[in-house]
Amino acid sequence: MSQEPCYDVAHLGHVELLTNKFEESLAFFVNVYGLTESGRDETSVYLRAFDDYEFHSLKLTQSDTTGVGHIGYRCSSQAALERRVAAIEAMGCGIGWVEGDLGHGRAYQFNDPDGHVFEVYFDTCKYVAPDGERAALKNIAQRYHGRGAAVRRIDHLNLLAHDVSKIREWMPKALGSRVTEYIQLDNGRLGGCWFTVNNKSYDIAYTEDHTDATGRFHHVTYAVDQREDVLRAADIFLENGVFIETGPHKHAVQGTFFLYVYEPAGNRVEVANAGARLVLQPDWEPVCWTETDRMKGQAWGLKTIPSFHTHGTPPVDA
Amino acid sequence: MSQEPCYDVAHLGHVELLTNKFEESLAFFVNVYGLTESGRDETSVYLRAFDDYEFHSLKLTQSDTTGVGHIGYRCSSQAALERRVAAIEAMGCGIGWVEGDLGHGRAYQFNDPDGHVFEVYFDTCKYVAPDGERAALKNIAQRYHGRGAAVRRIDHLNLLAHDVSKIREWMPKALGSRVTEYIQLDNGRLGGCWFTVNNKSYDIAYTEDHTDATGRFHHVTYAVDQREDVLRAADIFLENGVFIETGPHKHAVQGTFFLYVYEPAGNRVEVANAGARLVLQPDWEPVCWTETDRMKGQAWGLKTIPSFHTHGTPPVDA
Amino acid sequence: MSQEPCYDVAHLGHVELLTNKFEESLAFFVNVYGLTESGRDETSVYLRAFDDYEFHSLKLTQSDTTGVGHIGYRCSSQAALERRVAAIEAMGCGIGWVEGDLGHGRAYQFNDPDGHVFEVYFDTCKYVAPDGERAALKNIAQRYHGRGAAVRRIDHLNLLAHDVSKIREWMPKALGSRVTEYIQLDNGRLGGCWFTVNNKSYDIAYTEDHTDATGRFHHVTYAVDQREDVLRAADIFLENGVFIETGPHKHAVQGTFFLYVYEPAGNRVEVANAGARLVLQPDWEPVCWTETDRMKGQAWGLKTIPSFHTHGTPPVDA
Amino acid sequence: MSQEPCYDVAHLGHVELLTNKFEESLAFFVNVYGLTESGRDETSVYLRAFDDYEFHSLKLTQSDTTGVGHIGYRCSSQAALERRVAAIEAMGCGIGWVEGDLGHGRAYQFNDPDGHVFEVYFDTCKYVAPDGERAALKNIAQRYHGRGAAVRRIDHLNLLAHDVSKIREWMPKALGSRVTEYIQLDNGRLGGCWFTVNNKSYDIAYTEDHTDATGRFHHVTYAVDQREDVLRAADIFLENGVFIETGPHKHAVQGTFFLYVYEPAGNRVEVANAGARLVLQPDWEPVCWTETDRMKGQAWGLKTIPSFHTHGTPPVDA
Repeated sequence: MSQEPCYDVAHLGHVELLTNKFEESLAFFVNVYGLTESGRDETSVYLRAFDDYEFHSLKLTQSDTTGVGHIGYRCSSQAALERRVAAIEAMGCGIGWVEGDLGHGRAYQFNDPDGHVFEVYFDTCKYVAPDGERAALKNIAQRYHGRGAAVRRIDHLNLLAHDVSKIREWMPKALGSRVTEYIQLDNGRLGGCWFTVNNKSYDIAYTEDHTDATGRFHHVTYAVDQREDVLRAADIFLENGVFIETGPHKHAVQGTFFLYVYEPAGNRVEVANAGARLVLQPDWEPVCWTETDRMKGQAWGLKTIPSFHTHGTPPVDA
Repeated sequence: MSQEPCYDVAHLGHVELLTNKFEESLAFFVNVYGLTESGRDETSVYLRAFDDYEFHSLKLTQSDTTGVGHIGYRCSSQAALERRVAAIEAMGCGIGWVEGDLGHGRAYQFNDPDGHVFEVYFDTCKYVAPDGERAALKNIAQRYHGRGAAVRRIDHLNLLAHDVSKIREWMPKALGSRVTEYIQLDNGRLGGCWFTVNNKSYDIAYTEDHTDATGRFHHVTYAVDQREDVLRAADIFLENGVFIETGPHKHAVQGTFFLYVYEPAGNRVEVANAGARLVLQPDWEPVCWTETDRMKGQAWGLKTIPSFHTHGTPPVDA
Repeated sequence: MSQEPCYDVAHLGHVELLTNKFEESLAFFVNVYGLTESGRDETSVYLRAFDDYEFHSLKLTQSDTTGVGHIGYRCSSQAALERRVAAIEAMGCGIGWVEGDLGHGRAYQFNDPDGHVFEVYFDTCKYVAPDGERAALKNIAQRYHGRGAAVRRIDHLNLLAHDVSKIREWMPKALGSRVTEYIQLDNGRLGGCWFTVNNKSYDIAYTEDHTDATGRFHHVTYAVDQREDVLRAADIFLENGVFIETGPHKHAVQGTFFLYVYEPAGNRVEVANAGARLVLQPDWEPVCWTETDRMKGQAWGLKTIPSFHTHGTPPVDA
Repeated sequence: MSQEPCYDVAHLGHVELLTNKFEESLAFFVNVYGLTESGRDETSVYLRAFDDYEFHSLKLTQSDTTGVGHIGYRCSSQAALERRVAAIEAMGCGIGWVEGDLGHGRAYQFNDPDGHVFEVYFDTCKYVAPDGERAALKNIAQRYHGRGAAVRRIDHLNLLAHDVSKIREWMPKALGSRVTEYIQLDNGRLGGCWFTVNNKSYDIAYTEDHTDATGRFHHVTYAVDQREDVLRAADIFLENGVFIETGPHKHAVQGTFFLYVYEPAGNRVEVANAGARLVLQPDWEPVCWTETDRMKGQAWGLKTIPSFHTHGTPPVDA
């Protein structure tokens, strides 16, 4: 199989989250989750993990609702960005260019088939640590402050969609992503699908939305270096009164060691560790999980908590 | 900076190690280091870590000496392989095509400036776990057997070279690698240089050989999921009488949590963990470490053990 | 509060488990759980963890049923043993002296109020590691072999009883144990009670048996050094087809990081880590957990799995 | 061997450290080491780890020098305290009663043969967490705040003495301690000796002072739950500019996973983890380490850093 992989898109850059409890959400992300504020404008605070190299990876925006604003992916080069824009425009899902946020330059926005807003960009604002934030080791973007869960870098996000099969077709065309794993339901539908543009085994996942709403958000995840950091985060969340939905445990799908909580406004947030797992194989065959497989629960047998299949933001009346 | 990165080479595939104590070396790699035999021919045994997807990642070859036989990198596609071969032939360092080992198809061999033998290939033999070796989770290549250090996958290797500056020029041209970190000595020479073809922060490193010999080997490394696995490996090595040279500790360069031992024939072998660190940034600026930086020792202050600068294989009379 | 604690009993020594699947149970305990056989007689194999200092800590006995045979505690001295025997005889629950098993000398047996058989002894057979089992470090009883879950030492056991309140009165009198934590039900009954004779925060726990049977067994636990060892054990169990009932997770009660599985005959077995927690305080006030407290689930919110309240050995028809 | 162990002394309670850089030392202990202030008087601040049950475990005192002020051990009962005082007075090394610090009641002070000041006491002030410091789980003394190294409880201390053999005789008589390990030098002297009054494998160690000074201090140690916490502490120290003397690594003696730093005034402080190791055996035979043993370095081969044999506080001109 010698079809060439696409490398136009380098990595997930940032996620914009909406909150209707702005101050509580901000306090959570800074003091408990362990992000650092790198800037703010009228309606948003820009946040980063200590080893994110860009200005920000989370844009937290005041809103009258919750959920995701937009998702940004950084391209590998200016030429790669132009190729992606041409491809996306040809697909008919483009929105157009925007000037960019505090953290990056011009970006091209577009919609996925479920109505979520994405953008691709290349020009970015690399983080320069101010005094007091410089790491002792020069290969780390910012010092390890050890505050709260002290997550290292943005890892992935999970969106809800009505028709995951459509996303499976769309995403490789739009971003050049590869499918690494998916859930094949007995009814012929896809229950979930995991994608990556690089050697991480996924940077975005979609799972099926069983409501009529569109454009909903499931969770955003930051990575920590060790599983012990996930266990420690559980104690941090416990002591700070954060609602722990499920975990720590290990997913069967992707093998991620996970911990899910709700930030104060209700958006689901994960702390995760992937160990040394990478998808380095250029001709990786997507792994198919059947309903029979999924009946076994998570990797070590934990039954998936029902709210994991129902809770998304913004919430929807049942 | 919008020069496009090269993605022709997907990853480090395998290393051939020479041993003049074949049975002892083999016993070490299987029972203590935790690799699994996947095949053998007249002079070699082919070994793999439990989550390597190819047939083998270590070819252990009977010899009257020690050191490295050849190093194999897998390309991203057949077309990418052809581009690499054309580039290498144009550089004048090509050797020619070989039929391949048990574990892969045709490969093109060539020399680095210090005389080490490399090969690039695309056709490979993917591992199919026999009964008793199938993992409980279908996204893992082979079951986690937990034997010895139970390393997960091949990670990187380190070669010695007289002129690391030449390697720094050569490697990006030959493999399309990026330089991620390097050591700049006060005398104007490079003390070491770290390269990657993908999102791992390095897959090969070169450090300066202070002897007159050429083509020498410093170490090969397999990754484990957690730093605790490195600590556990230290006890495994201790109890099995394996010589521990240095570690566990954390390198300042690359931040790797390391443990170095000598396998019975004297080749240096590492068990390492990188945490969640990846180089996802397409326009990464190489990190320069000066002699002043290196005077601080390893990340937490451990002075680098002198043998780390002198011991290579095959050994050389001082 | 200056009542003097009692130190007559030094520690939990061993547990005898009954199995009606002897060969499968033995294979589990040796190859998967990681114990070592130190001897056998006609009906039993004597097993030990690598850092148990006595000959054995688990006696596995062929039977037509499952559950616990007897529980042995080692006294602090010969005089302390005699004091305990006198106290137990005065309580009217004594059975009498036995000659002892392979692993220890004379022992005095007695019954708890639910009919479980205990024994106290002082003369013991200290383990002397044979060639090939000696640890590299002379302060460890046996080498760290790294086989299976490779548990370090026996930690505690949990028995079922109809009236935990009676046990709470009886245990401090019989063994000089202290109560460290207990569950106070709204109906006035005790749901569970945790006891220790030393600085571990518990060496035995009793929880309420809701059936009419007596003398039943809930689980036996061995300690590992790190929570990572518990996580690793989960993968070992998964790959070996062992039924994982619940965990890894952290108990609210006692804070133990736990993982429960069933050995092939159905006896529940735990791998656990207590971190650095000890009860060094001589006048420790028992911690009371109410039903309201317990509604919060385990430490990080996991709901206690129903079988944890119902499954004991031997099994009882509902 | 049926001599009865002594249990009069329950545990190491607190250590008083002297500092001539009071504000810097205090900032280190609170913000970097992770202790909490529980009170202060004119010359001292009283500090505690989050799961110490007493008011304080470290008394930090302004001074014109460094080193140890006094060491406090808590007895098991009032009667046990009286037995200890009688024994100490009979030994002729008593100083007399003092009224006690903020954290405890009357204490009896005495000298070890090298001139260090000890005290024993029973009445103590148990910590009652104020609002904002209560743990989510009621079996933990104070919430896990996660600040800095966030150590859990005081573990042990190490003193220097000219004649460790004398200490070996004296300590079991004065405190009822047991010797668990010692270093036997070829010259017939003891290089070091480790003692415990409970099931921890040591609560105090003495090593030989090669200077003419008396009463000097080597280090004080707090325990963390996991080895990963020690590794994480190393990063915390690195980022805060704390001098790391040696570690993380594993001691051969006692098997402790260690990390030694100097607080700003120069007193050596350790963060350590013992895994699941305990000395539960009532008739433990002390482990003897010879010079030949010690030539092997620490557990995994690290050579002991020379300053570990020379640096004590207060410092002495060579």
